[in-house]
Amino acid sequence: MSEYDIVVVGAGVIGLSTAYHIKCRHPNLKVLVVDKFNAAGQGSTAKSASAFRCLFSSYVNYMLSDSSVDFYIYVQEKMNVDLKLSKVGYLWLLCEDDYKELNPVLRDLASKNLNYKEYEADELADKLGLVVHLADDEEAELMGLKDVYKGIFIPKAGIVDADCIVKFYESEFLRLGGEIHYGVKVENILVEPCKPLGIPDEPFFWQESRVSGVKTDAGVLKAKKTILAAGAWIPQLLDTVGIECFIKPRKRQIFAVQTNKPLLKKLLFTKGFNSAGCIPFTILPKPRIYARPFPTEGVFWLSYADDFPRAFKLEENPQPEKNFYECGIYQVLVKYFPQFKDCRPYSAFAGLYEINTLDGHPVVFEENDLLVAGGASGSGIMKADAIGRVAAALYEGEKYALLYGDRKFKVSDLSIKERNIELEKLQI
Amino acid sequence: MSEYDIVVVGAGVIGLSTAYHIKCRHPNLKVLVVDKFNAAGQGSTAKSASAFRCLFSSYVNYMLSDSSVDFYIYVQEKMNVDLKLSKVGYLWLLCEDDYKELNPVLRDLASKNLNYKEYEADELADKLGLVVHLADDEEAELMGLKDVYKGIFIPKAGIVDADCIVKFYESEFLRLGGEIHYGVKVENILVEPCKPLGIPDEPFFWQESRVSGVKTDAGVLKAKKTILAAGAWIPQLLDTVGIECFIKPRKRQIFAVQTNKPLLKKLLFTKGFNSAGCIPFTILPKPRIYARPFPTEGVFWLSYADDFPRAFKLEENPQPEKNFYECGIYQVLVKYFPQFKDCRPYSAFAGLYEINTLDGHPVVFEENDLLVAGGASGSGIMKADAIGRVAAALYEGEKYALLYGDRKFKVSDLSIKERNIELEKLQI
Repeated sequence: MSEYDIVVVGAGVIGLSTAYHIKCRHPNLKVLVVDKFNAAGQGSTAKSASAFRCLFSSYVNYMLSDSSVDFYIYVQEKMNVDLKLSKVGYLWLLCEDDYKELNPVLRDLASKNLNYKEYEADELADKLGLVVHLADDEEAELMGLKDVYKGIFIPKAGIVDADCIVKFYESEFLRLGGEIHYGVKVENILVEPCKPLGIPDEPFFWQESRVSGVKTDAGVLKAKKTILAAGAWIPQLLDTVGIECFIKPRKRQIFAVQTNKPLLKKLLFTKGFNSAGCIPFTILPKPRIYARPFPTEGVFWLSYADDFPRAFKLEENPQPEKNFYECGIYQVLVKYFPQFKDCRPYSAFAGLYEINTLDGHPVVFEENDLLVAGGASGSGIMKADAIGRVAAALYEGEKYALLYGDRKFKVSDLSIKERNIELEKLQI
Repeated sequence: MSEYDIVVVGAGVIGLSTAYHIKCRHPNLKVLVVDKFNAAGQGSTAKSASAFRCLFSSYVNYMLSDSSVDFYIYVQEKMNVDLKLSKVGYLWLLCEDDYKELNPVLRDLASKNLNYKEYEADELADKLGLVVHLADDEEAELMGLKDVYKGIFIPKAGIVDADCIVKFYESEFLRLGGEIHYGVKVENILVEPCKPLGIPDEPFFWQESRVSGVKTDAGVLKAKKTILAAGAWIPQLLDTVGIECFIKPRKRQIFAVQTNKPLLKKLLFTKGFNSAGCIPFTILPKPRIYARPFPTEGVFWLSYADDFPRAFKLEENPQPEKNFYECGIYQVLVKYFPQFKDCRPYSAFAGLYEINTLDGHPVVFEENDLLVAGGASGSGIMKADAIGRVAAALYEGEKYALLYGDRKFKVSDLSIKERNIELEKLQI
């Protein structure tokens, strides 16, 4: 039986960022990260669309992503670790109703000097070969698709390689003397009395008790502090000790298509938006299918963040569904971008979102020596650095975390009991 | 394949109250209640402690329980249906810290003419043979038990028979022409497109869709409106369509002890609190074990509403645990009430709480033609009538429900999106 100062469950981007930031501050602590997979970031991190944007209406969203992205830029530019981060921008295509609803929010952001650019529909039609008027398309009408009215371009946004970020945290954590055990599955959270009486079967409910580590398929790991950063698997573990975290698992599917055809290649390498000379990460009007450019590979990743009636379901090995592309994504996509006509994915993968059902923001809280960091709801990559710093500050018992760029962030804002989160109005 | 105006899932007290109140207002609607058990109220309703109190700090708690209890009193006294309701009162024993914390809350309630009575510890020691000073008891100190400092007696509180309430709603619902199918297990929620296109495998995500009934082990039941009132089973069903309800299942255990010994019998039939001539429903200081008198049977029901580290777990047939009584409840109980010395339960049963983890209050909301009523968190019996009326008002699309006694209640206060609930400060 091993005893650690800290055991972190989950070597995804949140777990490793947290472990790294704690270890940075306390090089002498015995910190262990465990993960059921055989390498870093092989759970939902590997299945991410790996994109980021730093324009949000909510202060929390803005702070977490903007500071994380600034840190990644620092790592790439100053530490010379290639994270394949490229500020290709986000292009968000809006129908008239959505634009009118968002307009006051956008003006407010502009007044705060947060940078974005508006495009007229016709300009985008020219630039991208985008179909913006669907009026004559009976099928599109039947499908409930809306005309593109405006486009919002967000320049501080783009793509990054989740695997590179994870590997960066992993190697830094190991360099600082951290320990990682891969291929170790956590089966249970261990609970023991704060003041053991030596009676069999304690703790009883009249005893104060605390989390004292985890039981794994490779034995018991005792810890002064246990940190759960297991993403979509967090609620399953927390349920065993009756702690609510407001996280639900939901499948995310990504379909990769090659740009073999000239028109599609031309679309991918649309100039004029960014220095990478490619189309931005592009979001269509409702139901908001998105296309993530992968210019170095000459491919697009296509996806959609689903809603009712798609299940909350924890799957060990979620699989992409053929129909989801063929009858879902493709049907909508081709109406706006005819360049995708007859395109079929050459590859597809599925992972799990860890949806925070309270407000879609991360949760970072501690109860009974168990610290929980998760619920990033699909923004895990772009917020991981900040979440790790907030978790490290919570571990210290600090009221404020110092995010990258010396920005103060109130730790309890991400807690459950004193949660303080504005509604995000710039929702995609 | 049958088609109904309304299918209610769950013939527990919430489901039947809801079905009854809707049917009252619309005798011509085709309303079906289904339940996997073979009779009414055989799920968690049958496993309830079946007690009520009408003194709460939160307006919502007060309104829901006070109006429900007034309705039950009306049923018993004016409709001559014996619900075995007896206002034996609640006696809440407080340690000094708890009393000091609650004192301002209690004064505020008193200023609103909400009735309660304070007892001094010594008075209760005399009246009940209660041990109020544990100072010399080393074991009690080791267990962290606190002295009794005051007792708060709530007169509009007591016991009732859950089965009688359920049978009342069931027979009234049937009398009005409602239909109930017992022994039918709901396996799935059915979803269909709002505007079907006749394509196989629809709805696709770009289609607007709605809940159109349920799939059961006895076939498909189509409904214009589906009402989920399946208690602790609600989240399992909702997860399949990705709707969050903030309900978690947790085991509740009740242990019944006979009062064969003279001292224990004397305790049960303590005079001076109520006209029934028995001890009130009594709650001990933290960890708040409670003793529910059952004077007509000459027994006590003993229980404890557990917390961390007890699991959130959905069990089809939860069982009471011997240790939970012997090492848990008994050890604490006997320190305050030595009359229980050597008492062992002659019977025990376990059910499921449907804990609302947001605030411990019920949820009543509708999404996509699916109405959810539940999450009463252990107060289902005492609030069932009001919850049924709120659900019926939501079905009507009314802004306000009229609770028994012509009391207006804002329907959206129990919703998720516009939820408006004060924190309950008089928590037991």
